[in-house]
Amino acid sequence: MSGVGERLGFIGLGIMGKPMASNLVAAGFPVTVHSRSRGPVDELVEVGATRADGAAAVATASDVVITMLPDTPDVEQVLVGEGGVIEGARVGSLVIDMSTIDPGPARVLAASFGSRGIAMLDAPVSGGERGAIEGTLSIMAGGDAEAFERARPIFDVLGSTAVHVGASGAGQVCKACNQLVVAATIEAVAEALLLAERSGVDPSKVREALMGGFAGSKILEVHGQRMLDRAFDPGFRIRLHRKDARIVEDAASQAGSPIPSFEIVARQLQRAVDAGDEELDHSGLFAELEREAGV
Amino acid sequence: MSGVGERLGFIGLGIMGKPMASNLVAAGFPVTVHSRSRGPVDELVEVGATRADGAAAVATASDVVITMLPDTPDVEQVLVGEGGVIEGARVGSLVIDMSTIDPGPARVLAASFGSRGIAMLDAPVSGGERGAIEGTLSIMAGGDAEAFERARPIFDVLGSTAVHVGASGAGQVCKACNQLVVAATIEAVAEALLLAERSGVDPSKVREALMGGFAGSKILEVHGQRMLDRAFDPGFRIRLHRKDARIVEDAASQAGSPIPSFEIVARQLQRAVDAGDEELDHSGLFAELEREAGV
Repeated sequence: MSGVGERLGFIGLGIMGKPMASNLVAAGFPVTVHSRSRGPVDELVEVGATRADGAAAVATASDVVITMLPDTPDVEQVLVGEGGVIEGARVGSLVIDMSTIDPGPARVLAASFGSRGIAMLDAPVSGGERGAIEGTLSIMAGGDAEAFERARPIFDVLGSTAVHVGASGAGQVCKACNQLVVAATIEAVAEALLLAERSGVDPSKVREALMGGFAGSKILEVHGQRMLDRAFDPGFRIRLHRKDARIVEDAASQAGSPIPSFEIVARQLQRAVDAGDEELDHSGLFAELEREAGV
Repeated sequence: MSGVGERLGFIGLGIMGKPMASNLVAAGFPVTVHSRSRGPVDELVEVGATRADGAAAVATASDVVITMLPDTPDVEQVLVGEGGVIEGARVGSLVIDMSTIDPGPARVLAASFGSRGIAMLDAPVSGGERGAIEGTLSIMAGGDAEAFERARPIFDVLGSTAVHVGASGAGQVCKACNQLVVAATIEAVAEALLLAERSGVDPSKVREALMGGFAGSKILEVHGQRMLDRAFDPGFRIRLHRKDARIVEDAASQAGSPIPSFEIVARQLQRAVDAGDEELDHSGLFAELEREAGV
């Protein structure tokens, strides 16, 4: 079985999961849903999804089960905990975890399912709520090539790019690398624009001058502008980037790979959380620097 | 006087200055040159430039004097030292320093010339040797708007963009911001690609997956590829970026602006210098990380 004919299950209808599941329903997939809160489930049922009573029940009703959950323990609970997906999934089915979790546990989960004849992909995304709504996510997948091909019609609905990065866990490693580069670039842009401002130079002119050269980036363009406008409504929350920074730190520690500059960026994210800015967009790292400068 | 009719002086025919002066000669400007080494002067004379015996003599023969020198003390010596530009320049002439130097001294120099009726721009560039050769530099200028307009026909030859950032020193502040963001982004990309590799994931796949999203940048594209290829021939040398990092640190210290992540990047540049990698391209920060990982 493959393609739009597959029966999908979707577990986790949060800020990301709800629009993703909606897009799959709108694309014509039969979708069975489950989530902790009743509200989003009702909304999905209204547009054509089917309600299931728990993770195992979703798996029983589906060929492919997708999870989109906050953190590693949530994914472990929903997939292999009591009443989890593993209790309802049949041989030949496919599990796709699109949450951002630790690479190590992602590999362990894939092995657990694999030993029962169930394929699993780790397929975290970037692109945020807007990407989820517009179906323009960037998807980074780890797992078997065959499973990746089977998932492709689903990824085509959810994202504008999907890269098969490597074996199980590779998607999560790739997402960790993504979150490392994004946060570090935000911090660098924040340090540069504050330096301009505090040196009496118009930071908007600096952003303009830097855009055309090697300092140019998507972050300078989008998040740089948010800093100029002091527009820190999320976007992607500092709280969530702090969580992802922990994943980066753990992955680096396990790989024995040095991340000297990112360690400082992670500390800045933690400081912003400690200062009560956890619900700001991650471009709010600029506000943390301003606080340190005594602005 | 303005436009191609102006008589130009060009002091400092190094890796950057020589192709810049050549482009001005080729564009039809009358150019008088001076440089420490005789070789590049001879080359410029061969294509149509005029030789002058020292900085003051260049100034006497020119309406606009351009300097492109290694560091702050060189610029101070050539502009206001014994036998310097200030001894030959007349009221109404224009000095354009395109070197990368400290913003503070750039402001002091502009004031010295200004008090004698001589305009001065600080106009550092980014884009490297290739940008200098191809006339595609990105120019960041500080000084009077009138002086900037007068310099525009010159900037049009040398660069593809020229931004008037603000008053005297603003060009150097902007360049410091540029060098901050460039080095910090290189370091972040290096940390991410090494993390991928040491986690058993193909870093070229990670680079590919990250290019489309918020982690995408000119640095990930160009310097990320150099890291994958271990192609660290310069390019822009670590030694020079270390010098520019010192300018960033001093500017930040004087402005009271925190640069916590860049401090670490500056330390990494210093470590690379200490390890003997000073003549590598700055993407060679990747090699420094590998050393730390014991690769």
